[in-house]
Amino acid sequence: MIKITFPDGNVREYAEGVSSYDIAKSISEGLARKVLSAEVNGEVWDLSRPINTDATFKLFTWDDQKGKSTFWHSSAHLMAEALEVLYPGVKFGIGPAIDNGFYYDIDLGGKVLTQEDLPRIEEKMRELSKKNSVYQRRDVSKAEALQYFTEKGDQYKLELINDLADGTITFYTQGNFVDLCRGPHIPDTGHIKAIKLLNIAGAYWRGDEKNKQLTRIYGITFPKQGELDEYLKMLEEAKKRDHRKLGRELEIYTTDESVGQGLILWMPNGAAIIEQLEKLAKRKEDQGGYLRVKTPHIAKEDLYITSGHLPYYADSMYPPMELEGTKYYLKAMNCPHHHKIFDAMPRSYRELPMRLAEYGTCYRYEESGALFGLMRVRGLTMNDAHIYCTEEQFESEFKAVNAMYLHYFKVFGIEKYVMRFSTHEPKKLGQKYLDNPEMWKRTEDMVRRVLIDSGIPYVEVPDEAAFYGPKIDIQIFSAIGREFTLATNQVDFGQPLRFNLTYVDRDNQPKVPIVIHRAPLSTHERFIGFLLEHYAGNFPVWLAPVQVAVLPISDKFNEYAEAVVNVLKKHEIRTTLDTRSEKIGRKIRDAEVKKVPCMLIIGEQEMMNGTVSLRKHGEGDKGSMSPEDFAKSISEEVAEVFA
Amino acid sequence: MIKITFPDGNVREYAEGVSSYDIAKSISEGLARKVLSAEVNGEVWDLSRPINTDATFKLFTWDDQKGKSTFWHSSAHLMAEALEVLYPGVKFGIGPAIDNGFYYDIDLGGKVLTQEDLPRIEEKMRELSKKNSVYQRRDVSKAEALQYFTEKGDQYKLELINDLADGTITFYTQGNFVDLCRGPHIPDTGHIKAIKLLNIAGAYWRGDEKNKQLTRIYGITFPKQGELDEYLKMLEEAKKRDHRKLGRELEIYTTDESVGQGLILWMPNGAAIIEQLEKLAKRKEDQGGYLRVKTPHIAKEDLYITSGHLPYYADSMYPPMELEGTKYYLKAMNCPHHHKIFDAMPRSYRELPMRLAEYGTCYRYEESGALFGLMRVRGLTMNDAHIYCTEEQFESEFKAVNAMYLHYFKVFGIEKYVMRFSTHEPKKLGQKYLDNPEMWKRTEDMVRRVLIDSGIPYVEVPDEAAFYGPKIDIQIFSAIGREFTLATNQVDFGQPLRFNLTYVDRDNQPKVPIVIHRAPLSTHERFIGFLLEHYAGNFPVWLAPVQVAVLPISDKFNEYAEAVVNVLKKHEIRTTLDTRSEKIGRKIRDAEVKKVPCMLIIGEQEMMNGTVSLRKHGEGDKGSMSPEDFAKSISEEVAEVFA
Repeated sequence: MIKITFPDGNVREYAEGVSSYDIAKSISEGLARKVLSAEVNGEVWDLSRPINTDATFKLFTWDDQKGKSTFWHSSAHLMAEALEVLYPGVKFGIGPAIDNGFYYDIDLGGKVLTQEDLPRIEEKMRELSKKNSVYQRRDVSKAEALQYFTEKGDQYKLELINDLADGTITFYTQGNFVDLCRGPHIPDTGHIKAIKLLNIAGAYWRGDEKNKQLTRIYGITFPKQGELDEYLKMLEEAKKRDHRKLGRELEIYTTDESVGQGLILWMPNGAAIIEQLEKLAKRKEDQGGYLRVKTPHIAKEDLYITSGHLPYYADSMYPPMELEGTKYYLKAMNCPHHHKIFDAMPRSYRELPMRLAEYGTCYRYEESGALFGLMRVRGLTMNDAHIYCTEEQFESEFKAVNAMYLHYFKVFGIEKYVMRFSTHEPKKLGQKYLDNPEMWKRTEDMVRRVLIDSGIPYVEVPDEAAFYGPKIDIQIFSAIGREFTLATNQVDFGQPLRFNLTYVDRDNQPKVPIVIHRAPLSTHERFIGFLLEHYAGNFPVWLAPVQVAVLPISDKFNEYAEAVVNVLKKHEIRTTLDTRSEKIGRKIRDAEVKKVPCMLIIGEQEMMNGTVSLRKHGEGDKGSMSPEDFAKSISEEVAEVFA
Repeated sequence: MIKITFPDGNVREYAEGVSSYDIAKSISEGLARKVLSAEVNGEVWDLSRPINTDATFKLFTWDDQKGKSTFWHSSAHLMAEALEVLYPGVKFGIGPAIDNGFYYDIDLGGKVLTQEDLPRIEEKMRELSKKNSVYQRRDVSKAEALQYFTEKGDQYKLELINDLADGTITFYTQGNFVDLCRGPHIPDTGHIKAIKLLNIAGAYWRGDEKNKQLTRIYGITFPKQGELDEYLKMLEEAKKRDHRKLGRELEIYTTDESVGQGLILWMPNGAAIIEQLEKLAKRKEDQGGYLRVKTPHIAKEDLYITSGHLPYYADSMYPPMELEGTKYYLKAMNCPHHHKIFDAMPRSYRELPMRLAEYGTCYRYEESGALFGLMRVRGLTMNDAHIYCTEEQFESEFKAVNAMYLHYFKVFGIEKYVMRFSTHEPKKLGQKYLDNPEMWKRTEDMVRRVLIDSGIPYVEVPDEAAFYGPKIDIQIFSAIGREFTLATNQVDFGQPLRFNLTYVDRDNQPKVPIVIHRAPLSTHERFIGFLLEHYAGNFPVWLAPVQVAVLPISDKFNEYAEAVVNVLKKHEIRTTLDTRSEKIGRKIRDAEVKKVPCMLIIGEQEMMNGTVSLRKHGEGDKGSMSPEDFAKSISEEVAEVFA
């Protein structure tokens, strides 16, 4: 008998050679139907693989990213099987699962595949899936593997096999298709019920442009057709809400070749949104007892050697500016500068927790191929803060940070979110992790307790902490269900040591504070990119670059319209006045296109009565009222956000 | 007869050989007594020098910087004369006038001069000044000049003479002292009535540390003792108000060796002041119809080649970051980025004037020797904006910019200011100045008209415009009378051409806008440096980093004190609470030292009555009131500034 330890700590005994599928079945038939792969002693395995020793054990279903990943990797094999039927002689590069779906890189010889070919491949995949072919794992010797693909004539697989050590090579077979593969896979093709091939791209073999360009086919699959339909609807919606498209149409931002790729120039509408986000952050941080600081965008090499960013992080930084023997770097993070402010004078326990906040602009050199709109950029302005606290203060500080996240989620109507809590792996202390086992235990316990106490949905991910401490990655979902990484909360008991940060404690002794890194509103770039999709560009009144468009029906009413504008401006309402000699229908249409939340129509009636007629974007007419009453209602609505 | 043309355009005839002094006398005896030097055909001359040709002519008195400069240069000669009497054999380097006073570099052989020696030298200077020795100019041949200083044994003067061309050398003599000198000088030593030698420093001959170190004596002189007394009082006061001293004591800013020299780290108190300044600027700019933008701190070399900053301005920029064949530069100014935002989409005349504003951080590589506190730094955050307008709009835009300056002067209690209006020199069109004579005339006329119409004190400085257009340098004086350069308003009809900026005019034709560069609140660095001196660190309530210190008399009142703090925080008043177990006297003293404008004393009486006792910094007790009433009065006082 062997001992199987479940994630909740329960241990059960099974006969040696039991499969994960059998274990699932021993729990419930329903679970056995849903389960896709299993983690055995930290490795993801096929369900059918026999377990011969005591093991820690975890089952993955579609609800787990690792379950999805197995499903999609198996779908890539299914697509390969279909391709081999349809295009005999096709050769295969690699075919991994990705964040959403999978791809396979293939070599069709001279043949060019187009979007039109995809339905036929999908059809063949559906046909093959119905055969319920089992994914079978087989250990092969290197010689056998080489022989197989030599006979098949697939130089890509041969190249891959050559890099592998004998004794570590496995083949997977489903139906008539055999692939070199580490696995794991789902039990059989029958699970793959909903299939969509999305698009075709070129991809150099092994990512090297000196190599041959292969054809990459992207696809996605689901266990149910309904889920696929929903996903495709979401994709369609996401296209309409594409932040690059909306960013251009709504004049939020621009980039310029002579400034540089990935460097955002915020146009007035984007800067107006930024102003409001910063106002919100400052208000909440004021209330939370934060102190603001302001630090330069550069520093000498020394600073980053102290912080440990150099030389390890150098590839992600812009190269240095070298002058008179000194190297200056653009900052890639704000923490070292903040540490220097903490360290600028002797600190007392009375000053802790000290929460130093700055909307700081950092620069990171992303590969030009990785740049994407506002989502992957080279200049990023971060809602940053560093909290210097004692261990006693840590838990309440961490709780307050989480509460701030939850508050923002409410403000922005973010209904779905998950926190990924990354912890250390005790075996790797002193290597991957700072060797302070007690500190790890204490801080991880505290973080876990805060998450549970705050009722925050979270997943715990072992062995993914940062070197200096546990961290939480905050994942949020837009209104259309797309997932975004918002920010990271990092516990740090390492940097304070490197920077020699101390405070004088009650007992007159110097002590080292713990640091919490946090950025609830992420970077302006990423967050505004998210908000563009989330709101589909329809920003709520408090955040809209232009809050009110005043639209006189004809020139006769321009003067009164101007008086209305002045009332609004006195209330600091962001207003435009459209005095063009256009028909009112056109003026309304243009304001609707610009997604201005409130339109005030000004005509004979309004001028006579000293009123305005309110029309709300996407909602239509809302009746008439005095300009002063309207301004007050807007001001109150806005003030609530900052309350 | 020769024709003498005065600054106002008047022309008078005088006999050939007339001296400037004679001309002054011909105007009035009083003027002749006050006049110190004269500008003849663009060169500053001694008053006694005969004028033999027609000339443009200007007289300088103590009220002109050039008059002062002549006075101080003559004072340096007087000091040299005294030194020669007191230290026979002393050798002389150079002895120029500086912004405030003069110095002379001397070689005393082995003798070390100390501060204690200065009164004796001053005394000798006073004695010599009373002799009313005339400063006599004499042309000498190079041979004669060399012979004189060879006999005297002054190798420094010999070195200087060797660099001069024969026929250009002049000596000046007063009393027994002869100096190699270009002049000009005041008529006689009798003018120098008030003398103070300030300090002694070391200075390498010709600024080269490979050369011998000479002794530099700094001094200052005035025509009247009262003026000197006032100046010394101001210096004394300036020392107390030194922004570096106050910046440290009030925890406004710090710098750090590992970040880099001249790079300011704003501590929470400094950042709080910055927040208020930016809030003020944004409010006023909102009211003025400005649009905000936000741009990166770097750009590719291309951008600065287009702007013309490269290669000419390269020495003042940080060196490039070179990556993948592309050079990125830290921006030294915001304009090119703003031009790119203007140019990001087609613009219509309807959008003009377009006023793009940004508190943008720029980096300039100043020599490390030139760095000085917040006044000369390498990173500067500028209250920048660029106004794109038509020629028709220019005058009213420029007027509005000036009105904004005047408003700020009122807000900050700046009572004395002067605008230096720099115009072009028609002879240098196409060389020093963009060759567009009509544009120069029109814009200069408009600027002059605005200055006169607005009743702004200004001086017009010919031949000091920028390449692209006329400019105004704004000089302000702190409460103790020290002069600061605040900012520059620049008219620019050149950059729009280089950047191909256009808008579509009413007639559907593309036109080029004029650009106005302006920065009324200067840079945060310079302006906060100024304000520290101006206010002696006693910031007004709206600007004070901490506005209110709540001081409970003993622990018993801490709870009520906290309730008071909460009332203030609801009104967004920046408040601290001092719960230390210190005597109230100590708490008050500490708050006074930190220059917190309002202190609220909380004791038995206050807790019983639900009141607070107000004490104002430097003013004392102000009676008691409810916390709510106090908060409202503060809020109103602050709101007025932003109204």
